[in-house]
Amino acid sequence: MIDSDLPGSTQGPAATRGPVRVVGTGLLGASVGMGLRGLGVDVVLHDPSRTTVVLARDVGAGRFPAPDDEPVRLVVVAAPPDVTPDVVLAELAAHPHAVVTDVASVKSAVLEELRTRGADLTRYVGSHPMAGSERSGPTAARPDLFSGRPWVVVGSGESTPAAVLAVRSLATDLGAVPLVLGARAHDDAVALVSHVPQIAASLVAARLRDADPAALDLAGQGLRDVTRVAGSDPGLWTSILAANSAAVGPVLRALRDDLDAVIEALEHADAAGGAESVAAGALGTLASTIAAGNAGVSRIPGKHGGARKDYDVVTVLVPDAPGELARLLAEVGAAGINLEELQLEHAPRQAVGLAALSVLPGLRGRLEHELAERGWKIAG
Amino acid sequence: MIDSDLPGSTQGPAATRGPVRVVGTGLLGASVGMGLRGLGVDVVLHDPSRTTVVLARDVGAGRFPAPDDEPVRLVVVAAPPDVTPDVVLAELAAHPHAVVTDVASVKSAVLEELRTRGADLTRYVGSHPMAGSERSGPTAARPDLFSGRPWVVVGSGESTPAAVLAVRSLATDLGAVPLVLGARAHDDAVALVSHVPQIAASLVAARLRDADPAALDLAGQGLRDVTRVAGSDPGLWTSILAANSAAVGPVLRALRDDLDAVIEALEHADAAGGAESVAAGALGTLASTIAAGNAGVSRIPGKHGGARKDYDVVTVLVPDAPGELARLLAEVGAAGINLEELQLEHAPRQAVGLAALSVLPGLRGRLEHELAERGWKIAG
Repeated sequence: MIDSDLPGSTQGPAATRGPVRVVGTGLLGASVGMGLRGLGVDVVLHDPSRTTVVLARDVGAGRFPAPDDEPVRLVVVAAPPDVTPDVVLAELAAHPHAVVTDVASVKSAVLEELRTRGADLTRYVGSHPMAGSERSGPTAARPDLFSGRPWVVVGSGESTPAAVLAVRSLATDLGAVPLVLGARAHDDAVALVSHVPQIAASLVAARLRDADPAALDLAGQGLRDVTRVAGSDPGLWTSILAANSAAVGPVLRALRDDLDAVIEALEHADAAGGAESVAAGALGTLASTIAAGNAGVSRIPGKHGGARKDYDVVTVLVPDAPGELARLLAEVGAAGINLEELQLEHAPRQAVGLAALSVLPGLRGRLEHELAERGWKIAG
Repeated sequence: MIDSDLPGSTQGPAATRGPVRVVGTGLLGASVGMGLRGLGVDVVLHDPSRTTVVLARDVGAGRFPAPDDEPVRLVVVAAPPDVTPDVVLAELAAHPHAVVTDVASVKSAVLEELRTRGADLTRYVGSHPMAGSERSGPTAARPDLFSGRPWVVVGSGESTPAAVLAVRSLATDLGAVPLVLGARAHDDAVALVSHVPQIAASLVAARLRDADPAALDLAGQGLRDVTRVAGSDPGLWTSILAANSAAVGPVLRALRDDLDAVIEALEHADAAGGAESVAAGALGTLASTIAAGNAGVSRIPGKHGGARKDYDVVTVLVPDAPGELARLLAEVGAAGINLEELQLEHAPRQAVGLAALSVLPGLRGRLEHELAERGWKIAG
């Protein structure tokens, strides 16, 4: 693919050749532009909002204005899922020699609509970078947004090998890890690992709306973890869920069946209200629900893509002052111990934090010894 | 309460006067013992398992053996919820001058059974320290397990002021923050902030059991957060959920109603399959579901018990080597910037981590500047 006499290929290590046209210059589009510009690739910008595209230009995402019919090699459509098919169709027509990709977080609905409407699917390759931010818009864009993240590449079934390679190269140039999946497999996967967890988090968080403040004072890290993603944008998620309803629906219905079983079990779990055998069956349902969760969570890959390790965790009290956490971690580093995971938690109404340090199994004793010697208080 | 001529009150700052009898010397009981022993309070231990009680003694949780009828001032029952009433009754009878408390994570069911069975409720005060660990047993015990954690104190309605004060003092001596609640209010609160989130996490995680490994490769921090507590112990949670079914049931049924609405909305969200007005209503349901989650999650208190702040977050790439994270945080500290929250995430298959540094609003620019000057790569 690399051809040193073409624009964009002489200034950096990029496999992607410009000009690249980015259509939709919000967080994702502007981040694609900034990342490519950093590699010396020529990028032209387009967005229905002039404010958005000017902001994207000003943060260094690419050129603007540029003629809509300026020849380009690659078009990246970064629009909400519901408008993505329209935009992809228009770009395929306007740039008859370009490869066109999109970054929408659902793939089957987009591909089906393109097929129905007679798009040239040889030049279309869908993609989905698994990256984002709680902030949005071009001012939140970062050239490294995709660094280390999975980037799903979804051929249309008619995509040419060159078109697929162009999108894989885009992912790799931006520091992402390309994963090739079919549209349906992608949509089933994100339903499981993203869309259903989002709905569950929102439903649990919604129960807190009318909670007594005293109840919320009992909130611990568990509740915070379960509900963190419940802060997501309703507009974007409505579009995502509607576009992936075919994959999300069956998972949610299976989850509801399990939930119904739990609710029924809770009604019978108290032996005082019925026969012993009914109560025993109810307890069995509760236990198998929690055990099924154990089995599922153990399959989530951990660090470096391996199966999740059971780390040893040492929890340390950290005074709430600048530099204290740094001093703690400096002393961990000085002891030659590598942290696998780190979580900082603040105790309610106390000027002290709890730092949970995860280390490889077997290092716990040494870590505790090293920290205690340096005067740190171990909390668990 | 402090009376310097009584045992235990001269060696430390404890308001709790011994001897204290700890019945059940697993994680919680042994931690209570270790914490009190560290303050110079005399502690005697009892557990139905001789192995467990000997381990607890050996880690410094208290004295063993001791006569069961040795006079004590306070009994702490740290047994599973389903056996707690039996043990509390036996201890009230065996120690007719002692205050008896328990640490079970449900309170109404225990109190009702004690009342039905004619317990002396003037000397009984329930409690629930909001602390735990993914490890269990006396070898996981820590004298600081309760440090900075809420500790709910639940009077029986007949408890004497002195009995309530004794349990509040126990909480304070162990570094916890006592919160006085009624039994029903406590159970409703933990249903909302702990039991229902646990069930939701388990149900989401259970969907992963049969997932394609390629799907799990797309797992991000969102899934990890939602399902982290799904690793909990089935036996303990069966006992907790059964004992709190009266409070958990209504919350779960309300959640199921919301879930049914989402499932129905997903069936109608695609306008191609029905009338435009039906599709619009479905999209409205999806949007209001996510918005309700926004409203709920915003009520969870953050650091120091205040309403959660919207921190600025700066994400930094950290090479996966000992000392690198420490160097990062040392440089944050050297810049005089206090971290409010810190989360470390590992990118799949990359020898690099992403550290999300949360700082007070307005400090983002300065933090980014300071880090960039020192050569750190800002990722978002």
